[in-house]
Amino acid sequence: MATTTRLLLLLAAAAAAAVAVPCCSGAEEGLAPTTAIIQELRPRQGLSGQLAARAGIKCGSWRLGVETHNVIDWKTVPAECESYVGNYMLGDRYRHDSQVVINEAIAYANSLSLCHNGKEVWVFDVDETSLSNLPYYAKHGFGAKPYNATSFREYVFEGSAPALPETLRLYRRLHVLGVKAVFLTGRTEDQRAVTADNLRRQGYYGWEKLLLKPAAAATGGGPQESAVPFKAGERQKLQDAGYIIVGNIGDQWSDILGAPEGGRTFKLPDPMYYIG
Amino acid sequence: MATTTRLLLLLAAAAAAAVAVPCCSGAEEGLAPTTAIIQELRPRQGLSGQLAARAGIKCGSWRLGVETHNVIDWKTVPAECESYVGNYMLGDRYRHDSQVVINEAIAYANSLSLCHNGKEVWVFDVDETSLSNLPYYAKHGFGAKPYNATSFREYVFEGSAPALPETLRLYRRLHVLGVKAVFLTGRTEDQRAVTADNLRRQGYYGWEKLLLKPAAAATGGGPQESAVPFKAGERQKLQDAGYIIVGNIGDQWSDILGAPEGGRTFKLPDPMYYIG
Repeated sequence: MATTTRLLLLLAAAAAAAVAVPCCSGAEEGLAPTTAIIQELRPRQGLSGQLAARAGIKCGSWRLGVETHNVIDWKTVPAECESYVGNYMLGDRYRHDSQVVINEAIAYANSLSLCHNGKEVWVFDVDETSLSNLPYYAKHGFGAKPYNATSFREYVFEGSAPALPETLRLYRRLHVLGVKAVFLTGRTEDQRAVTADNLRRQGYYGWEKLLLKPAAAATGGGPQESAVPFKAGERQKLQDAGYIIVGNIGDQWSDILGAPEGGRTFKLPDPMYYIG
Repeated sequence: MATTTRLLLLLAAAAAAAVAVPCCSGAEEGLAPTTAIIQELRPRQGLSGQLAARAGIKCGSWRLGVETHNVIDWKTVPAECESYVGNYMLGDRYRHDSQVVINEAIAYANSLSLCHNGKEVWVFDVDETSLSNLPYYAKHGFGAKPYNATSFREYVFEGSAPALPETLRLYRRLHVLGVKAVFLTGRTEDQRAVTADNLRRQGYYGWEKLLLKPAAAATGGGPQESAVPFKAGERQKLQDAGYIIVGNIGDQWSDILGAPEGGRTFKLPDPMYYIG
């Protein structure tokens, strides 16, 4: 069975686990199936093991630098970190790291004094936040190869991206709480239908808005194009229309930087690419 | 030899290494001496090893949540993470993680088009940024025990905190570049003399300003007291006085959040305590 096929099954299994336990507390259920993939990817003994361990420290620090917004404006994952990032994304750690973020987001949402006026919204980014493009990146070096706008666009139009199960858990909790969802994405208007279909098929439903970039942006610079003015501008429009942005979640700092940010922001992990 | 004594020697050795290689590229020199201490702290085999491995994943995700500002308003390190945080702080990882941040900061500083008007400054936090209180926290559960204002104050008045060698490397590079240093700290005015002496003894010299909180704040709520209004307010005063804050570095998000932030901000790791 090809790695990609197993990956899809793995993500599907994880999503199914999230469906069964929509308000789970972040326990470690559903993580075992990744082990076999990790074993394959990680050289564990001998010189290769030592090199991997050394790369692990170096790449782990690089990843922390990325996640904390110290390392910015990078184009590709460092070549020596391709295996490290692959292990991370396919292994338990990515799932655990995401769980911690979502647990905090749900605890925050539960603590809100909501007025239920139909105007309280939570802003969700799409790629690597609501939907996972890991099936694509697993075939393209986990971000270690230069971004290819054409092939990524083809992947998007397949509409096959699985949900990130943790984000789906937050989405469902917010639905119960009466906080409406607004998707705000760097995807372009020409991708509206396929994105909406993809989201629905993965269990997202009943959103208030799906905000995309004008189609003209499809000819732009790909993921390196700055997203802050567009996303902050769209959040400002939401506020101007009377919405109260109680929360905002994304995998890129450009999803959550720039006023108005929202009542509280949450940063999901993503060591595969950078959007400034 | 007591662990604390060895820790002091270790930090001194690391600082000496930084002196010898003031512009090192982030290579892994000077890291070997930590190994013995890590070996002591980390249970490596059997049930204890499995528990440690499991805690490692859980605590690693918690630490990432802290460093990415997803986990906020926490009072103490989770009890099950005391050993993890101790290992992290005493081991190679903390040093490596700090190196990545400082390498980015130096690359950014080197890239600046400076006008050398004597008004270009870089803001440095003090605790866990310029000086390390690891000798204190190593004796107090690495943040797993509640903050004790009295004993920490006694430690500060010893004036014995070692430099964080990576920050000292940035400090020296900025000095060469002609960017002046401003220390901006939650320490209080009554600690001015001991803080200045401690900084000088550790190799910091020639700073433009050392900004502390009014002494009245010494009776306040300790590290949980919000620092954002004070620090952002002091940065605003700097700007109003004609200074250009080209950079800003701290170990807490409250060091770098709040306008004016500075030209670019850098977040050093600190999983031992949280200041909101």
